[in-house]
This record gives sequence, C-alpha cells and structure tokens, in this order.
Amino acid sequence: MIKAKAYAGFDAKSDLKPYAFDRRDVGDTDVHIEIKYCGICHSDIHTVRDEWGGAVYPLVPGHEIVGTVVKVGSQVKKFKAGDLVGVGCMVGSCGSCENCKNHLEQFCTKVATFTYNSPEADGNTTKGGYSDNIVVNEKFVLKVPTNLKLQEVAPLLCAGITTYSPLKHWKIGKNDKVGVIGLGGLGHMAVKLASSMGAHVVVFTTSPNKKDDALKMGAHEVVISKNADEMQKQAGSFNFIIDTVSAPHDLASYMAMLKIDGTLCMVGVSPQPHQIASGALIFGRKSLSGSLIGGIAETQEMLDYCGEHNITCDIELIPVQKVNEAYTRVLKSDVKYRFVIDMQTLKDS
Amino acid sequence: MIKAKAYAGFDAKSDLKPYAFDRRDVGDTDVHIEIKYCGICHSDIHTVRDEWGGAVYPLVPGHEIVGTVVKVGSQVKKFKAGDLVGVGCMVGSCGSCENCKNHLEQFCTKVATFTYNSPEADGNTTKGGYSDNIVVNEKFVLKVPTNLKLQEVAPLLCAGITTYSPLKHWKIGKNDKVGVIGLGGLGHMAVKLASSMGAHVVVFTTSPNKKDDALKMGAHEVVISKNADEMQKQAGSFNFIIDTVSAPHDLASYMAMLKIDGTLCMVGVSPQPHQIASGALIFGRKSLSGSLIGGIAETQEMLDYCGEHNITCDIELIPVQKVNEAYTRVLKSDVKYRFVIDMQTLKDS
Repeated sequence: MIKAKAYAGFDAKSDLKPYAFDRRDVGDTDVHIEIKYCGICHSDIHTVRDEWGGAVYPLVPGHEIVGTVVKVGSQVKKFKAGDLVGVGCMVGSCGSCENCKNHLEQFCTKVATFTYNSPEADGNTTKGGYSDNIVVNEKFVLKVPTNLKLQEVAPLLCAGITTYSPLKHWKIGKNDKVGVIGLGGLGHMAVKLASSMGAHVVVFTTSPNKKDDALKMGAHEVVISKNADEMQKQAGSFNFIIDTVSAPHDLASYMAMLKIDGTLCMVGVSPQPHQIASGALIFGRKSLSGSLIGGIAETQEMLDYCGEHNITCDIELIPVQKVNEAYTRVLKSDVKYRFVIDMQTLKDS
Repeated sequence: MIKAKAYAGFDAKSDLKPYAFDRRDVGDTDVHIEIKYCGICHSDIHTVRDEWGGAVYPLVPGHEIVGTVVKVGSQVKKFKAGDLVGVGCMVGSCGSCENCKNHLEQFCTKVATFTYNSPEADGNTTKGGYSDNIVVNEKFVLKVPTNLKLQEVAPLLCAGITTYSPLKHWKIGKNDKVGVIGLGGLGHMAVKLASSMGAHVVVFTTSPNKKDDALKMGAHEVVISKNADEMQKQAGSFNFIIDTVSAPHDLASYMAMLKIDGTLCMVGVSPQPHQIASGALIFGRKSLSGSLIGGIAETQEMLDYCGEHNITCDIELIPVQKVNEAYTRVLKSDVKYRFVIDMQTLKDS
C-alpha cells in the first residue's frame, strides 16, 4: 500500500481536515502520480456536503488533478516517470458498453468510476485529488502540455472539458454567435474556448464588474442580464448558448435569444427542475440540451488544443489550509475564476 | 368580389353557425379554389374559442384544405383550372427574410399570414377552409397527388406536415427507433410516416383499445404508458421521440426513454409550461426540442411522398352541420383519427 496525505470531509457539515490513508499499490496498468495542483470544483462542495446524496466519509474531493508520474506498472506504455499528467472526473469505466466503445465513458451504462466518492471493484471508495498522490489506470491518465503553467492547467480537467465538449459536439466555429450564461469557472473557460474557435462570443452576466475580464478573455460583447433593453437587442441572434449557471434562472428569456434551430446547452446540474413552455421550443425548432464533461479521448484532445492555443484557466492559488475559506467564497461566486490548491502545502499539515 | 358560404364562430362560447361573406377577386398571382374537404384540427377549436387570444369574429377556421382549381390569375404558371390542390396553415409570408429564403416560411420574422384569423395587407382577416371556396396566392398552393382519396388527404396539410417535417429534419430512417407519444390526429400520422421511412416505431398511449389500430398503421410495438413495467423495458432505447400530446404530462419519464444524443420533439403547444430537470438532459446529452408544421416546399415534398407511399389519414367524414358535435368529440379524444368536413354539404345550410 502507498501512504497518502489528504484533506477530507468527515461529515456533511464540518470543515475539511487533514487525513491520512493508503492508496492501492501500483498495478500492472496503473500510473502512480505525485499530485502538484488540484482545482476546486463546485461539485466538490455539493458532494462533500452530501447535497446530492450518497456521500461516503471520510471523503477526499478533487477531480482537477495535475502532477508528475512517479512510477508506472509493468504493462504501461503511454507514460514514464517524470511525465506531466492530469486526471479528471473519471478513473474507470466498463470499456465494453456501446457508450464506452464510442469514447463516451462519462455515459458508461455499467460501472463508470468517478475520481472520488465512487465505489471500486475492490470494495473501496475512490479518493480524489486533495491529496499528495494518486494511483490511476493509465487509460484514465491524460498527457499535459509542457508549455502551459501547470497550476493553470488543473481546472481544464473538469471546467475545460465540460465546456470544450459541447462546443465541439455542436461544431462551433467562425460563423457562429455563441452566448455564455454566467462568468464563473465554467463560463470563463467557455469564453476562452469559443472565441479561440472563431465564434462571436457574448457573455450574459449579472455582475457589471466582470465586464472587463470577459472582454480580456475573448468575449466580443457583454450583456448585463438584468438590463431588459440590452437583452432585447440580442433576441433571435444566437446559434448556440452554453448555460453554466446551476442556480434556478429563467430559461425562457434565453430561449428567445436563439435563432431558428438554435440550441441552449446546460452544463450545470440545477437542484430544482426548470420550467419551459413548449412554444419556446416549437416556434423556431429550438433545442434545450445538456452535456456532461467529455470522454477520455476528447479530454486529451482538449488538453492538446489548449497547449496549441495557449489557453489556461484564470486561477487563485491557495494553500490546502485555506480550502474551507475557499469553499465559502465559491458559494458567494467570489473567485476569479477558479481556486487551485497547491498540494506542496500538504507537507505543512 | 367572390361570394363564399361558410361556417363561422361569432364569439368564444357559441356554436359555429352558417355565414356568408366575400372573398377577394382573383389577383394576377392568385388561385381560386373550390373547397371539397377540410379537416378539423385541434387548433381550430383553440382559436375559435379564443383560448390563445386574438380571435377576430366572425371567425372561419380550417387549414387542412383540399379542392379543385376554378380559375387562376394571369401570371399563375403552376396551376390550371381542374387541378387537385391543397392549402395548409399558411397563405403568405414576407419572402425576403432569412427564414423565408431558407424555405422555412412558418418562421417568417416579418409577416407570416396564417390561413385563418390572421391580418392581411388589405386590412382584412384571413378566413379559412370551413367554406366553399378560397383565393390563395399560388406560392402557398400545393399540388395534391391524384392517386389518393381526396378526403383522406385533407389532414395531411397540417397533421401530415407537422409530423413529416421533424422526422425529416432529424433524418429518421431504418436504423432508428422512434417513439410516438399519443395516438391522435398527429400521432397516427407520425406512426404511418415513421414506419414508412423504415424506423422501428413504438407508440405510447394511455388507451389500450388503440393498440390494434396502432399496429395496423405500422407501429411495431405499443406501450401502455400507465404500465410502469412496460415503460421500464423501453428505457434508454430511443433515438427520437415525437410528442404529440399538448395536455400536461410527465416529460422526465420520456427523456429516460432516450439513448445518448436522443431528441424528444414536441409538436403540440401545451397551455402550461413543462417541468424538466437539467440532469434529465445532461446525463446522456439529450435534447428537448420542438417543431412547427413545415415550409411550403417541404409540404409539397410530403404530399408527393404520401402519394408515392400511398399514405393518407384515417378519417371520419362529416357534414358541416355536425361540426359542433365533432368539436365536442375532439375534446374527448373520441375520433379515429381526424374529422374531415364534406364541404358539398354547405349547400344544405
């Protein structure tokens, strides 16, 4: 067994605290990774606070993981010690269902194993990236481009692929006008990626003070969504809108932004159901859709793309001792635009 | 002016009654049609009872019109006296907006003119097909195949194109499993069309007594939607579901029927908004969509297709004097599967 230090939740209500546990030994097809940085995703908070149910404590969150390879199993061919690598939301899937065969492991119909709080074949529960090391099957390990700042790469493993995948699936390019609802961890990546693909990008935000940032990230226009006049001017003009807001909000006004055959794609799981009038879809043959992270091959494609286009996340780097404070700030949307934990600081815990 | 006899609504609550009025003279680009048959669409009832607002009385409903050409204007080239023709939901559009140019006149952003209760350039309100004749610009007149029973063609002009258009738009063919929710006027056409395109068709209905009819129409399976076991067996197996039910119903259970990347397309305008959880779309990259009739070119394509494949509607032919009784029965879903009015019977009013 391999000793691991981490920060974990011990129940739904208390702060995360230091935690020591054992990782499995490095199997023939495993990669042992020293974790350098791990991003904080809103899902971490939902899970550790058991807001989605099913929390198994002690619970080590974290699925935006980057680090260096320490050791590889005897049959591992893609990686060697010293390689820069990443791990995202998944560490296993059945590999044989229709979705796995189509490189959509996130929709595995049998045994998708998520990076934390997910049951494994050996009866253990997966433990995530708020930790100094991790052991992962090589199929779920990604190569990280060496030209990017490593700490700014971490959130690409979730926020990056979650926005890249729908932009690619709906074939966004230079003839498209793309709306991005919400400028947070996901939204700011959607802006950078969509504008890099050549689209005309418009950000919808409730925060006037984010306007300058959005323009710097590549947005062409910023609409303050509380301003009815600004909203009205955009009506019927979008091919595609990516909705990164998981809090309850009015979908009808955004459906009205779409052109004929336009799609609004949700990437944030809302706690309450949305209301939608059938007429909002019928008049204009519009679609309300959703997208979930991305497959492993597509995650690698996204990392390579970000390397080529020099795209990373805007982050605030924190020591692990500040993780509880960071959670409080995430819930207030007070972060520009993703917290990343420096895992070297675990040594001080 | 041209004398017309009709049945009209005179207010939101009373029965339809006989009504005489004048049609415009036949202009250079107009076609004058003697109406033989007109279908009864649920929209007729909503409109004449002012349930969607904006009713202008006397109101002559009817947009599933077939008949013969009496006379054509001097510049009309496509039609001549004696031709079998049809008129659907639209009689005009701007012709110059992006949607009109793309043959999607139903989404004209300027002046779409519907067949009844729609303002015209001359200040009049359009009057529909519960009438012995009509004058329509040739661009909105369709050729009717001569090999089909004319009275069974009438509902193709709305129920036919409303279901044909989404099946074509979503490229339904022999590798697809298609669900049809509701076996009414729209649903029974969806079954006939989808099965003719080679799809495996499953009907979802609350009425066990419609099962035999559905199978005769070409359905491969019939699921009684109140039966949880039957529903469960179909989970995750559909590429496409066409939802013809406009009354409130549970969308979540049908979203769960879709495979990855599946689409549920609504064609009935519901009076109340639907509830939809974002997770029902995100987990499976599914789409909730809608479709509205079809463009004029596509309506002609549908009529030609029905001629080639010998597809018509299942109808109950009634004299115009029974129209109010028919409305009562439509509201009880007591019709197999569309009422069509024999317009020759207007002579007896």
